Amino acid sequence: MHGQDPQTCIFCRVIAGDIDHDVCVAVSGGFVAFPAKQQRPRNHGHMLLVPAVHVTTLQDLPTDLATGWLTATTALSNAVRSAFHATGVTIRMNLGPPGQDIAHLHTHVIPRHPGDELPTTRSQNVPLADRIAITHRLRPHLDAHRATGDPGALP
Amino acid sequence: MHGQDPQTCIFCRVIAGDIDHDVCVAVSGGFVAFPAKQQRPRNHGHMLLVPAVHVTTLQDLPTDLATGWLTATTALSNAVRSAFHATGVTIRMNLGPPGQDIAHLHTHVIPRHPGDELPTTRSQNVPLADRIAITHRLRPHLDAHRATGDPGALP
Repeated sequence: MHGQDPQTCIFCRVIAGDIDHDVCVAVSGGFVAFPAKQQRPRNHGHMLLVPAVHVTTLQDLPTDLATGWLTATTALSNAVRSAFHATGVTIRMNLGPPGQDIAHLHTHVIPRHPGDELPTTRSQNVPLADRIAITHRLRPHLDAHRATGDPGALP
Repeated sequence: MHGQDPQTCIFCRVIAGDIDHDVCVAVSGGFVAFPAKQQRPRNHGHMLLVPAVHVTTLQDLPTDLATGWLTATTALSNAVRSAFHATGVTIRMNLGPPGQDIAHLHTHVIPRHPGDELPTTRSQNVPLADRIAITHRLRPHLDAHRATGDPGALP
């Protein structure tokens, strides 16, 4: 895993706006989301949900973040679903090797569509401008969930 | 999705012991786990974590279960890791189509090993006797986590 040190952790730097400026959006309860750098073409809108503070793995999550994780995941899932007209989402966390490549806990929220063949399709790099556009498209859908006070409500 | 009706839901029937008797193990906070019927050969020990009550999707989880989900997932992840000598786990939830095939919320907890090539390997049916053996092997590791009072502790 890369980025064991919060000072050099790539996700901490994204959250701080040091790199990939403008890709982040606040979700709820200490969680921030930004688009994955690698996405499958048929799953455009694939987001990563991360605690704003540097936490490596699930069991290191402070209690208040542990309580907020499910709320944030549900809110982001519903926003992704409505923003990208998805029929569902796949939520995935890789904890430890060989799956976890960045040592900052992150949850993949992937929009799903019938026939997308997620398991067998290869990911491609998404340019920064496209990732900023994804966040821009997602933001009002997250705001809508927050405005209703019901992060779990589907629009 | 199959099993919309709790009366006919296949996971409710597994939890009740009507089918696949002896595959279930209680985890914590209203959650039960049993081995997935389809597993990749290099990821032996792949478990499903489900609420004991019939809940279709994340946003329908009652508040007490929502709080308990992360604790149960962490406990099961650590037990799977130690029971099957895994270096890590992958946690996955499919919500809605086309990923979710059973309409009872379930979290996959998959043991990971270096070089397991999870994304490109095909799943195979695991006979009932082998699934019972998986649960039998896992149980003391779950008990150990509960005995320490720290479901998040690695052994």
